[in-house]
Amino acid sequence: MAKEPKTLEDLFHNTLKDVYFAEKKILTALPQMAKATQNADLEAAFEKHRRETEGQVARLEKVFAAIDKKAQGKTCPAINGLVEEGGEIIEEFKGSPALDAGLLAAAQAVEHYEIARYGALIAWGEELGLDGAVSLLEATLEEEKATDKTLTKLAEGVVNQEAEQEEAA
Amino acid sequence: MAKEPKTLEDLFHNTLKDVYFAEKKILTALPQMAKATQNADLEAAFEKHRRETEGQVARLEKVFAAIDKKAQGKTCPAINGLVEEGGEIIEEFKGSPALDAGLLAAAQAVEHYEIARYGALIAWGEELGLDGAVSLLEATLEEEKATDKTLTKLAEGVVNQEAEQEEAA
Repeated sequence: MAKEPKTLEDLFHNTLKDVYFAEKKILTALPQMAKATQNADLEAAFEKHRRETEGQVARLEKVFAAIDKKAQGKTCPAINGLVEEGGEIIEEFKGSPALDAGLLAAAQAVEHYEIARYGALIAWGEELGLDGAVSLLEATLEEEKATDKTLTKLAEGVVNQEAEQEEAA
Repeated sequence: MAKEPKTLEDLFHNTLKDVYFAEKKILTALPQMAKATQNADLEAAFEKHRRETEGQVARLEKVFAAIDKKAQGKTCPAINGLVEEGGEIIEEFKGSPALDAGLLAAAQAVEHYEIARYGALIAWGEELGLDGAVSLLEATLEEEKATDKTLTKLAEGVVNQEAEQEEAA
């Protein structure tokens, strides 16, 4: 059987499945990160982003519907690796003043991955004329960028505070 | 033996080892991506970034020296996953008009990961007063951001061109 040449539609669908898997994985990781942090603001930020991520999963399901495909994930080794790194930080820095700085950095690496992925999906969706899908993806991209900014602000506070604790110790 | 509490210095060193591993992994992946692409501009961009990455590895070795540590990598599951995804695109989209768009997106996901990691290292380095290390890390961060911009521009051209090829086919 000759293989059909793969098109930009296939790439869009392929990456959509990758991101769907990633968002669901993030949904399982965020409560662990919220539980691990020693900082109330960071805990609240992880909780808030967990709720947002539920909405992002629902949006992705609408994007699948818009291209007449079944919502289905595809194992995404990148997010598995990113989440594994967050887990390593929790394990190695448990009880340490640097834990929160490490958790924040791990969360920002995840956000940057998502920003890259949604950016690509939006560019391809525009080229394919998938206007409805593009609007949904743009709404999520804005949330991811806002989360990244929130994490950057929290990181500045956390890193300063922890460095002071170390000096005082 | 009681474990020493881990500090921001430990987190900096830990993440430096992670990024050192990542840059070396990227050095092996870029020639494969350059070989796979059908686009001469993209091939040149991957080649150029490979040469830059060699310089970035050398800079990281200077950062290790600046904190009196041996240059040493630590397995980074995130970069392994990101590079694996690039490999999947090469395999699944070989000979397809969408291959280059997929390669570009995979490369941008790697750049975003690096931008997140260098951003964290710079913030921690500033807090720790590691001025020399921070300058080196900032030089690399600027290169990564410039590469990301180059890839975005190339992506716009590649995606348009490939969509037109599909229409003409």
